[in-house]
Amino acid sequence: MAAASSSDTSFVKIVEVGPRDGLQNEKKLISTETKVSLINKLAEAGLSVVEATSFVSPKWVPQMGDAKQVMAGIDRKPNVSYPVLTPNIKGLEGAIAAGAKEVAIFGAASESFSQKNINCSIAESIQRFAAVADAAKEAGLRIRGYVSCVAGCPYEGRIDSQAVADVARDLVSLGCYEISLGDTIGVGRPREIQEMLSAVTRAVPVEQLAIHCHDTYGQALANIYASLEMGVRVVDSSVAGLGGCPYAKGATGNVATEDVVYMLEGNGFHTGVDLSRLALVGEWISAELDRPTGSRVARALLAKQE
Amino acid sequence: MAAASSSDTSFVKIVEVGPRDGLQNEKKLISTETKVSLINKLAEAGLSVVEATSFVSPKWVPQMGDAKQVMAGIDRKPNVSYPVLTPNIKGLEGAIAAGAKEVAIFGAASESFSQKNINCSIAESIQRFAAVADAAKEAGLRIRGYVSCVAGCPYEGRIDSQAVADVARDLVSLGCYEISLGDTIGVGRPREIQEMLSAVTRAVPVEQLAIHCHDTYGQALANIYASLEMGVRVVDSSVAGLGGCPYAKGATGNVATEDVVYMLEGNGFHTGVDLSRLALVGEWISAELDRPTGSRVARALLAKQE
Repeated sequence: MAAASSSDTSFVKIVEVGPRDGLQNEKKLISTETKVSLINKLAEAGLSVVEATSFVSPKWVPQMGDAKQVMAGIDRKPNVSYPVLTPNIKGLEGAIAAGAKEVAIFGAASESFSQKNINCSIAESIQRFAAVADAAKEAGLRIRGYVSCVAGCPYEGRIDSQAVADVARDLVSLGCYEISLGDTIGVGRPREIQEMLSAVTRAVPVEQLAIHCHDTYGQALANIYASLEMGVRVVDSSVAGLGGCPYAKGATGNVATEDVVYMLEGNGFHTGVDLSRLALVGEWISAELDRPTGSRVARALLAKQE
Repeated sequence: MAAASSSDTSFVKIVEVGPRDGLQNEKKLISTETKVSLINKLAEAGLSVVEATSFVSPKWVPQMGDAKQVMAGIDRKPNVSYPVLTPNIKGLEGAIAAGAKEVAIFGAASESFSQKNINCSIAESIQRFAAVADAAKEAGLRIRGYVSCVAGCPYEGRIDSQAVADVARDLVSLGCYEISLGDTIGVGRPREIQEMLSAVTRAVPVEQLAIHCHDTYGQALANIYASLEMGVRVVDSSVAGLGGCPYAKGATGNVATEDVVYMLEGNGFHTGVDLSRLALVGEWISAELDRPTGSRVARALLAKQE
């Protein structure tokens, strides 16, 4: 699928992050069986990348405590990638033991966020990731890199685009084949996203970049549209907008995959995703979580059926 | 304010439609006093155009039954326009008697929608509007024109952009100084909106066009961004996304003014609107309507204060 995306500028690769980035931020603990079903259903709906889980201490993220069981349970389709988050060597060892073929490491563009989130400076975090990346490469795994706070930080406010570019370049140097640029708190607006991308694309080819938007301020789709204008062809999103209830104050949910696919299709892009089928998956997992879907497209489509 | 918008390409005029297009679609009847307060608060927040009410039969739209009292109650600021909807001569007479300085007429780009909504063809509707427009001009009023279903129709599906252009041109011929292009059912996507605007701007100068997006499919901000790229500098929106609860299935609410202003400010535009003040107005009217705000920006800002 990566080959298709680099040769065909109308193909947009969706990286579905609902089972990891989404569920990790949902309060209700759900069963391993449901997680496995979610991942399988997403792959069956046509998603070529489904971030499956995180090999992180269950003390920190209880929702991801069954990473090993999830990886053992899913029905791996040949053309689908199931990356897992590996914040450290212990996590990487768990991922390798569980048969992961792709891992992800998670850096920040904000010094304060790095300190508060992983208790070290950005430079120190890159050093730590180097050990994880080296071991991953030795095991023959693909590595994806995340950069958080690319458009703003909850502690620092605005983030210099050059800081984003520097971290992105460092993660590529460590061997990441793709860098996902995350507006973690959803404050960015189209022109700010484009300015950030201008800086980052001077350090990393646009073909290696993904955009990862949270819809906290409702700007996600406009920002994705602006990123497409800059040549970005990889978009992270979360079915049903998992990862923060859209009805709660200060919700910081991911942009809904359904809404992204709907926009892309109308803009002449193709994704390989079956939107009707995806909407059903979103409806099902929202019911499992006892919450309404965060996808406006899903709500509109469901309403039309009634 | 129109002069400012035509000479300064970084100024975007927001046409606040919450008190009319918004409230008209809210189920809970609210008092005249609350409507008057809403309009006054919106003008105080810096909005230069606040659509105030509709002179339509209360049999059809009970929420607008107090149009005369609303117009008598508001505190008219000198640099603010308070247009009112006048679907027919009777409505226009009411508007004139109430001291309105600006009226709006409402056409459709879809034959089926025109038939079902106002029981006549598009051509017949233009003839009817001609009488209203002539009388309005004679009374010295400014006239704004709406075109609905510009990106899709609930009965016909896709709408030919040339049909939109034809109605827009006809409304300008009748004397409308500005044409608001409405994606009534919120199905449009950025490229479709741009293609529609390409057709319409061949018939009507872009300086006379406004974009009016509903957020049913979550596409509104992306579509507004795409319209700005085409040179549109007038945006209709509704404080708190009034006009359809965002939590209900099939909600068809207007895009929230707060979210539009937030995006515009980040994109280098200015609007004259005080966003913090506007968010408080949205919070207040949402409470009056016993509903949560439909503005994501307002939710995010309010959450930060807690």
